[in-house]
Amino acid sequence: MERMETSPARGMKDYLPIEAALRDWMLGVIQETYALRGFQRIETPALENLERLIGSGGGENEKLIFKVLKRGEKLDLACADENTLADLGLRFDLTVPLARYWAHNQPKLPPVFRAIQIGPVWRAERPQRGRFRQFMQCDIDIIGEPGVLAEMELITVSVEAAAKLGVKNPVLRFNDRRFLDSVLDWAGVPAAAGAAVLIALDKLDKVGPKGVRAEIARMELAEQSTGRLARFLEESSASEDLPMSLFEEIGLAETVVTDMEAIASLAGCSALAGTKLVFDPTVIRGMGYYTGPIYELGVAEMGFSIGGGGRYDEMLGRFGRPAPACGFSLGFERISLYLHEQGEHGTLGAPQLHLRIATPADYPIALAMAERAVARGVRASIEGASKKLGAVIRHLHEEHESVAGSAGPWIAVVELSGPELKVHDVTGDCPELSWLQG
Amino acid sequence: MERMETSPARGMKDYLPIEAALRDWMLGVIQETYALRGFQRIETPALENLERLIGSGGGENEKLIFKVLKRGEKLDLACADENTLADLGLRFDLTVPLARYWAHNQPKLPPVFRAIQIGPVWRAERPQRGRFRQFMQCDIDIIGEPGVLAEMELITVSVEAAAKLGVKNPVLRFNDRRFLDSVLDWAGVPAAAGAAVLIALDKLDKVGPKGVRAEIARMELAEQSTGRLARFLEESSASEDLPMSLFEEIGLAETVVTDMEAIASLAGCSALAGTKLVFDPTVIRGMGYYTGPIYELGVAEMGFSIGGGGRYDEMLGRFGRPAPACGFSLGFERISLYLHEQGEHGTLGAPQLHLRIATPADYPIALAMAERAVARGVRASIEGASKKLGAVIRHLHEEHESVAGSAGPWIAVVELSGPELKVHDVTGDCPELSWLQG
Repeated sequence: MERMETSPARGMKDYLPIEAALRDWMLGVIQETYALRGFQRIETPALENLERLIGSGGGENEKLIFKVLKRGEKLDLACADENTLADLGLRFDLTVPLARYWAHNQPKLPPVFRAIQIGPVWRAERPQRGRFRQFMQCDIDIIGEPGVLAEMELITVSVEAAAKLGVKNPVLRFNDRRFLDSVLDWAGVPAAAGAAVLIALDKLDKVGPKGVRAEIARMELAEQSTGRLARFLEESSASEDLPMSLFEEIGLAETVVTDMEAIASLAGCSALAGTKLVFDPTVIRGMGYYTGPIYELGVAEMGFSIGGGGRYDEMLGRFGRPAPACGFSLGFERISLYLHEQGEHGTLGAPQLHLRIATPADYPIALAMAERAVARGVRASIEGASKKLGAVIRHLHEEHESVAGSAGPWIAVVELSGPELKVHDVTGDCPELSWLQG
Repeated sequence: MERMETSPARGMKDYLPIEAALRDWMLGVIQETYALRGFQRIETPALENLERLIGSGGGENEKLIFKVLKRGEKLDLACADENTLADLGLRFDLTVPLARYWAHNQPKLPPVFRAIQIGPVWRAERPQRGRFRQFMQCDIDIIGEPGVLAEMELITVSVEAAAKLGVKNPVLRFNDRRFLDSVLDWAGVPAAAGAAVLIALDKLDKVGPKGVRAEIARMELAEQSTGRLARFLEESSASEDLPMSLFEEIGLAETVVTDMEAIASLAGCSALAGTKLVFDPTVIRGMGYYTGPIYELGVAEMGFSIGGGGRYDEMLGRFGRPAPACGFSLGFERISLYLHEQGEHGTLGAPQLHLRIATPADYPIALAMAERAVARGVRASIEGASKKLGAVIRHLHEEHESVAGSAGPWIAVVELSGPELKVHDVTGDCPELSWLQG
């Protein structure tokens, strides 16, 4: 028989059991943490009407939409235009669907609504190592609460979820879009140039202060503006203390200062223990829709972000039901790579027992044994003798090595033959099994 | 502002928190039951290359594929042909992707592989009440085991999952495609007419024996064939005992009888207690790919199927890696409707506490209280005072009513103001809360 191409579609990924087990465990931990703090899971369809996805404020992501052909009579193949041929698109994030969901379902939701959304999104990006065209997003949002308490809740529960997942030494860097706007005002940057200056500042990580200064110089702003932005850059180091004298100098509104102080005060809560909280004036976050506090969660030694978010008070109104809102998104895929490297394997951590029987007549006995094992938290399967014992044990050895090296849970193959049990201890540390016989 | 259309895309569904909570709880129960019996979760992308979905043996479902437009330069809008414009399709089941997955990943999988697949599939069906164009499928499959032990395992664990979900009085009806083939042989039905006769028999539920006889009469088979099929219909009542004399008369192969006896013997296992097991010669199951035992799980009083499956030894070979295989699919959407009607609401069953504070300065105290509540399994959220207390309590009353009538868990709103706690007991049975203060 001719061998067919069997890879997943370009840029997509199959998950092996060892990968899926880690992801399922992560989902369970995240969801339980959020649910116990009053957040509620919701779900929207993967497909949305195309006209809602286009022009939704999704920026570059809108160019990456997988578009779905119209069906039946609605499809006019003579129309040589993508957006006439297609009527649906796969969602590229969970925020646009949330805005539609809120507008549609608000009367059935609490006055202040805490949403959990965990699910796949799709983007037709150029495939590259470690990035896939279908990936998980994991968002919480609080809709209807205008005050900074909402941000305090989002930050607390997200940091708690990260800690429960085993993320070590997290750092939460926060800033505020209103502060950045004040800086632009103080520097006398014309409104039309504001976005470009923020984009330049956002590159600080990559190009350094010199690079940012050079980019700003190319904008040919007034001398005073360039000078003040340079001074801002100099004083822009992340710190656990708020730069009150800078705030005063630029004339930052008192309400913004109070909100920042509230976020900074979380450092004193025991629930945050282990998470460093710093004000970082160079946190920008790309999306244009943010209107207040913004934040990024990173792992100190890795130097990459594993989550973040901000307030977007103007966005929900797009679908006709305005409401203050803010969100926090955990970088599910990045965290799963990080945990995989740390040797975390989720539910595959349970010991396992293979009950090997020769004929169906032995099934009821094996089933009773499997039930006793399951009651003790052991994964137990009943296997026929169609595969050679050696091959079965060899695979289990490999699995054990790949899951946990030599420190993993025990694995045993037990052959049943009448009342006799023959135990093959795959890992060398399987306990005594007489309880199997009841 | 103009009010926009905010419904989900045609035929799709938004899930409210109360619906999502039930589904999440179901997923957890099903997955844990399967995982503890040695099954392993895998995941494939939602999109597959279109040419793999078309001609995959999916029958009518292939006409219902959502097709995705090619992107960038690959898209030639002058090609007036669906299958040239599109290169990807949303999966319409989990079986075609499983076959591709097996062919691609087999060397990394156990010799006998027990797969769990739970995820959405998409079909562009005409929308109708209670049926959606995106819905969950929930499959387990055993690949690599040719013997009936595989079916015994599938049936045992599926019935166990259904029982843990709270399905009452389940009935498992089983049959075997090889038996049906023998019946056709014995009746002398020509090979070309075999499929049509099975389709006619499959309508027994809907049209009754008279209707089936009429449909067979229209096929103008030989007199002996029509007579023998009529006799088969007469003797085709479901029963806990196998019709051994019928088996003998039609000359059923001994191996088929042995397999049926093995499945029937499950009735004696305590794990199956509560599930009725019957041989039903009229179970056909539509798909052409079945080759051995087939089965359907139903709820006695509801008269509908909540799951089923069978052996499909010839199907995996399509992607170049043949292997014996069989599967069991639970009807996730049907079961969720059934459980919803029975008043099951999953994780929304936990009590909830709303800690209401006036200023961010009270947040650390509230957070410590929330942590104490969470440690007791109470869902605890911290709320600002931006919404009127009356509106908040009114919504909680409504939620409590919709979740559980008067028998639900307690809900309380606690106002913090300095060291004072003011408790509003929403449900009338909230316990004493002094432990909140540590």
